[in-house]
Amino acid sequence: MLGPTHDGERYELTSPTAMPKAGGFLWNQKMMIQMTCRGYAVAQFMQPEPAKYSHAPNLEAKTFMQPEQNYYTHHPGRFVYVKDEETDEIFSAPYEPVRTSLDRFAFSVGKSDISWNVENLGIRVEMKFGLPTNDVAELWTIKVQNISERRRKISVYPYFTIGYMSWMNQEGEYRQDLGGIVASSITPYQKPQDYSKIKLLKDKTYFLCRTEPDSWEVNQHAFEGDGGLHNPSGLSEPTLRKGDARYETPVAAVQYRLDLQPNEEREYCFLFGPALDDAEIIEMRDKYLSKEGFSKVADDYASYIEKGSGCVRIETPDKDLDNFVNNWMARQVYYHGDVNRLTTDPQTRNYMQDNMGMSFIKPEVAKKAIITALSQQESSGSMPDGIILVEGAELKYINQIPHTDHCVWLPIALEVYLSETADYELLSIPVQTQNGDKFTVFERLSRAMDWLLSKQARDHRGLSFIAQGDWCDPMNMAGWKGKGVSGWLTVATAYALNIWATICEQQGDKPSSSRYRAGAKDVNDAADRHLWNGDWFARGITDDDVVFGVKDDPEGRIWLNPQAWSILGGAASPEKIGKMLPQIDRQLGTPYGVLMFAPPFTGMREDIGRVTQKYPGQGENGSVYNHAGAFYVHSLYSIGESDRAYRILRQMIPGPSEDDYVQRGQLPIYIPNYYRGGWHEYPRTAGRSSQLFNTGTVSWVYRSFVEGLCGLRGDPNGLSICPQLPSAWDGMKVTRLFRGATFYLDIRRDKDVQRVTVSHEGDTLPGAHFGGIKAGEVYHLKVAVPFTNKP
Amino acid sequence: MLGPTHDGERYELTSPTAMPKAGGFLWNQKMMIQMTCRGYAVAQFMQPEPAKYSHAPNLEAKTFMQPEQNYYTHHPGRFVYVKDEETDEIFSAPYEPVRTSLDRFAFSVGKSDISWNVENLGIRVEMKFGLPTNDVAELWTIKVQNISERRRKISVYPYFTIGYMSWMNQEGEYRQDLGGIVASSITPYQKPQDYSKIKLLKDKTYFLCRTEPDSWEVNQHAFEGDGGLHNPSGLSEPTLRKGDARYETPVAAVQYRLDLQPNEEREYCFLFGPALDDAEIIEMRDKYLSKEGFSKVADDYASYIEKGSGCVRIETPDKDLDNFVNNWMARQVYYHGDVNRLTTDPQTRNYMQDNMGMSFIKPEVAKKAIITALSQQESSGSMPDGIILVEGAELKYINQIPHTDHCVWLPIALEVYLSETADYELLSIPVQTQNGDKFTVFERLSRAMDWLLSKQARDHRGLSFIAQGDWCDPMNMAGWKGKGVSGWLTVATAYALNIWATICEQQGDKPSSSRYRAGAKDVNDAADRHLWNGDWFARGITDDDVVFGVKDDPEGRIWLNPQAWSILGGAASPEKIGKMLPQIDRQLGTPYGVLMFAPPFTGMREDIGRVTQKYPGQGENGSVYNHAGAFYVHSLYSIGESDRAYRILRQMIPGPSEDDYVQRGQLPIYIPNYYRGGWHEYPRTAGRSSQLFNTGTVSWVYRSFVEGLCGLRGDPNGLSICPQLPSAWDGMKVTRLFRGATFYLDIRRDKDVQRVTVSHEGDTLPGAHFGGIKAGEVYHLKVAVPFTNKP
Repeated sequence: MLGPTHDGERYELTSPTAMPKAGGFLWNQKMMIQMTCRGYAVAQFMQPEPAKYSHAPNLEAKTFMQPEQNYYTHHPGRFVYVKDEETDEIFSAPYEPVRTSLDRFAFSVGKSDISWNVENLGIRVEMKFGLPTNDVAELWTIKVQNISERRRKISVYPYFTIGYMSWMNQEGEYRQDLGGIVASSITPYQKPQDYSKIKLLKDKTYFLCRTEPDSWEVNQHAFEGDGGLHNPSGLSEPTLRKGDARYETPVAAVQYRLDLQPNEEREYCFLFGPALDDAEIIEMRDKYLSKEGFSKVADDYASYIEKGSGCVRIETPDKDLDNFVNNWMARQVYYHGDVNRLTTDPQTRNYMQDNMGMSFIKPEVAKKAIITALSQQESSGSMPDGIILVEGAELKYINQIPHTDHCVWLPIALEVYLSETADYELLSIPVQTQNGDKFTVFERLSRAMDWLLSKQARDHRGLSFIAQGDWCDPMNMAGWKGKGVSGWLTVATAYALNIWATICEQQGDKPSSSRYRAGAKDVNDAADRHLWNGDWFARGITDDDVVFGVKDDPEGRIWLNPQAWSILGGAASPEKIGKMLPQIDRQLGTPYGVLMFAPPFTGMREDIGRVTQKYPGQGENGSVYNHAGAFYVHSLYSIGESDRAYRILRQMIPGPSEDDYVQRGQLPIYIPNYYRGGWHEYPRTAGRSSQLFNTGTVSWVYRSFVEGLCGLRGDPNGLSICPQLPSAWDGMKVTRLFRGATFYLDIRRDKDVQRVTVSHEGDTLPGAHFGGIKAGEVYHLKVAVPFTNKP
Repeated sequence: MLGPTHDGERYELTSPTAMPKAGGFLWNQKMMIQMTCRGYAVAQFMQPEPAKYSHAPNLEAKTFMQPEQNYYTHHPGRFVYVKDEETDEIFSAPYEPVRTSLDRFAFSVGKSDISWNVENLGIRVEMKFGLPTNDVAELWTIKVQNISERRRKISVYPYFTIGYMSWMNQEGEYRQDLGGIVASSITPYQKPQDYSKIKLLKDKTYFLCRTEPDSWEVNQHAFEGDGGLHNPSGLSEPTLRKGDARYETPVAAVQYRLDLQPNEEREYCFLFGPALDDAEIIEMRDKYLSKEGFSKVADDYASYIEKGSGCVRIETPDKDLDNFVNNWMARQVYYHGDVNRLTTDPQTRNYMQDNMGMSFIKPEVAKKAIITALSQQESSGSMPDGIILVEGAELKYINQIPHTDHCVWLPIALEVYLSETADYELLSIPVQTQNGDKFTVFERLSRAMDWLLSKQARDHRGLSFIAQGDWCDPMNMAGWKGKGVSGWLTVATAYALNIWATICEQQGDKPSSSRYRAGAKDVNDAADRHLWNGDWFARGITDDDVVFGVKDDPEGRIWLNPQAWSILGGAASPEKIGKMLPQIDRQLGTPYGVLMFAPPFTGMREDIGRVTQKYPGQGENGSVYNHAGAFYVHSLYSIGESDRAYRILRQMIPGPSEDDYVQRGQLPIYIPNYYRGGWHEYPRTAGRSSQLFNTGTVSWVYRSFVEGLCGLRGDPNGLSICPQLPSAWDGMKVTRLFRGATFYLDIRRDKDVQRVTVSHEGDTLPGAHFGGIKAGEVYHLKVAVPFTNKP
């Protein structure tokens, strides 16, 4: 069995080679670690910008988190070498760096820990690690057991990468006083003004041992020698050299020499992380490096993760789906809302969407985020490209490139927050910006919508400018001369306006409501006039007035987003939708989901820009870009296309066939930002996961499960109930936490109903809606749905 | 024998493990490649900023050339795997990545090529490569011979790293039409304005084969598989998979399946480099990839290198010294002057010193550089931190930090140029700057000297401000508040002023001459008053008025530069010199040369800055920083301290003892920027070479050989002759090219002379000077030197 198995709460992988990049991730508000099944790790912590304590072997570029991370022999990781002292045979757990064929390999990803169970040469090695809830450190437990039937003499060498820390100053040594290896470095800088920041950086990496080792090595090259990492020279001696590293690459390697009776086992605990100075190392040691410390951390962290378990549990005929939704999906949404992708300046677009999802998990966080974002609104009503979360942070990378879509996301995020909480008082909260102006949330939203309708945002035809990008970041040259427009942003503007009009209506502000609805209609009319292509909406019009994303384009002919959002925003009439959907199925459908557009660009189109330079079928160039797929699913549920919606949702989750797991190379514990496209062009690599779990996808997918599939959406008066089961299902059970109450819904097909019919304690409710909800109450509802799903 | 052997023109190393980082380097005006004996390579080319075509396995930071480069399994390199098809045994040449113990290993560094001769399993592999004179490419010849006594079936796999090219777009495939592997990538960018540059970058890497291979692999992971680089899975099949890389890390690996009779050999040629597009690849192939092409390149490149062979050849009792000076020293000077360390914005200080050296090699280049530098002089007379050599280049890295010493280097470089050429007309050339002002070279030099004397450059005591650094770059906080002064720069200012006063005098401008001499005296008096410490000069005074580099300092107590330059500039009286030199010997002397200062700083001194954060004994923090040592040698020759000078010069060159080579880890083909200090603190690593051949050291050392040891220095009327032989030498022979003439000097100790006595064609000259030199003439001189060297 090469694909994973699961017991509900954990996924287990029994081969290190079938899906070599597959892994899991843990995080807290200060750090994140992504760990592959083979033992490679990418860990980042915030101080306040992302930094590392376990480094590559060379000077790495500082960059945003990369998809399809490349692994290589000296990639940072956490390993344990085992040597049979009687035969000199060696192997390593979990698999790297020796890569021996093992008697048993089990990689197990839990929600709050990651572990391995490896057996070879009659020795079992169990590795397990977790994080504290509010500090930067890894807590490792490594158990070694003699599972052979004779006494064994072995050496066990935990080997943790520290790597090339700094070209300016790096060294390491074993510190008897601290009880472990401490490597020190100094972050290079040149401008004296930067020194005050540099001197506070946690530039030390420590590896503390609860049990004092018999020997150690702190010098990477000395440990490895000419044997290489697959057969380190250091292991060929009876003990490690107890060497240091002096402006040499440090490593944390320690040795325990064991003499084990049959079944005898030993347990070792280690603390690995960054620190400013010795005092901080001592503090961390005293706080964590004990049996009680480890056990408390595990409990605390599990309950921290538990707080992010979301507002819905399902029981459906699709057990793999249940497992993903109940155990993993909310966790990924929580991660986004909790740590903002470990940036100090999230893109406004991401920040709003991640917090849209957080409304289902911890709505108070979403509320704060909406206010934070609005406190950085510009005086024109437009929104900046990124939201600064930490004093002194700067807009970096893509946030230096002017995009035009940020206002759109405000009402979208707000709508979900209000649906979940009915906290309409938020709208009256006054928010002051740095430029001194002060408006309520309601006023600020209106100003943002006014900006979207203004001449600054729309051209003479009423289409929305794209500037150097919209949701599709790298479409940087379609409108950089100030003339090009975005088809997607045009129809998305209508969607935003309509949402806002509805909220205005709920607030009793009819004039505003009418004005924004009229605005939406105006926008949609313009889209219809200039962008409808006969069978679908075009993606945009360039600075040189070339419409693109149209039938005559050999590449980038049809784009998913303008279709999905024209459904959401109302530009697409039922007749248009009827033309669109088959085109999407035919041109964009793949076994791994719906392509963002097709065919992928194979070379630069200078009138569109960077997206056309990206690798065909990868990232934003014609991949199964799940974020776009998630919008599409949301739009499908909005028109009752529940079978299509379910099919695509299901494709977003790897498996359950073994072939599918192996081709994608990922466990179903998160939805990645993309799967490779190029289904026709590059079938060998199509479907491969980006392994990048930072993505706006998840909030939308979670929303689609809650509001679409389960059909359980809040409104000012209570909970609207409109499940959209795929036609093959007879029913499902749902637990929904909502406004402090718990709903148990037993949803069944019923040939006798023509519309969704809800009963509570034997009484049939007048509509598919439950009002008068009391926090703390438990409600059991029976829901009958007709055999056709169309609402 | 672990140390190198040589045959005059080449150095040979017979062990890949004794000095694992030892290697050689080749360059032309467009590229540079540094190659270790084990096959690892660092190659950069200019477009116009430094770029790579053979990459690391991850996204590397862009940085300046690093000392003590860290190597690791997947570090870029050039290798050949050999597999015995009958036994499946494998090994690799030159040594990495398999690291088999070889029957024979010979690494041979020539001036214009680098080669290996490796034998194992009865197979000889010869690898050799060179560069074209004016293109970016590596030309590789790989010969394989059956040296066993039976017929052999083997496979040979050249394996060249391409690496992780780009996170945006990378792929590779075998191109039958082009005859090799071509990998393509796109340099990431985000701002549309950058696109016009990006699109012209040579983002392709090609590996062209003169002989079509039997199979190939372009996919790094597929080639390597789970076997790892020491035992690639790709080699376990009869043929490589002929695979491609699609957004996967590309590699250039090809296979030749051979059936060789005893002694039979095959020769393969490859062309490896970057290109913009297919057309350029075809052009390069047609130009170079033929027997004639390779042979022409080798000839052209050898004659290109020959042009940099310098102005002096020596024959002394010290054969290792002869070899270094005659074959290698000028080559390193030439490299600096020819390519300006592969930057587009050399530090003004470096640019002037590198061209000071170039005056001995190609004075016309030095002349142009002096004018180029002066054309960027500021209107105040001061000089910018870097000189822009390419339109659009920017001041980067350390050049963004204000330093105060740049003017000092102008008269120093000019003096040597004038000594070599007597081209005093240069002084009248008018030079216009961007700000529109126009002055002659003479006027510009005077303005620079005036600036050094001005209130902008000196404090109320007459000491020179240090701002955020002087020659010692990372002394960034001693004077950043605008008050701190530099002891070194103060005495260096006197040196510069005195040089300029002499030139003014030679030009008959007595008023200027007197003025600058008076300025020098004023400066030296201030130094004497505020910086003399009893036994040596202090290094400076901080913003807070703390004198540092003095007896009470536990770290950084004595600095070499203020002593050396006080000798050169006249601040140090003979009495002071008599106190200084023993202190330098005692406190700064090590077996590997003179420390820049001692003891090294072990932690931050916030009133001095970054230098105190650097690794103790490494780089600028108390290492044998050869640049400072070279100044010192120059100062020693200026006072006739020829034994001390020779001893230190000799320490700069690795060897000739085996222990010395191994400890330093470097071949004696260049002087590195530093050897590790910490002789007392870190004896294990003391003496280790930085392996960085970019250094201002070389111009000064070459100058010391020419003007000091050989004592052959030009003046307006001819050649002054004053050899300073170490006392143990009886004599030496020198060939000196000077102003178009060739001088053969036979220098002998003569107990009958009290001063240097020169005879020409039997006639004793009136002084130790030869005038009336005619270009094209050959002069044979006999030089008698007394037994004491003091002038």
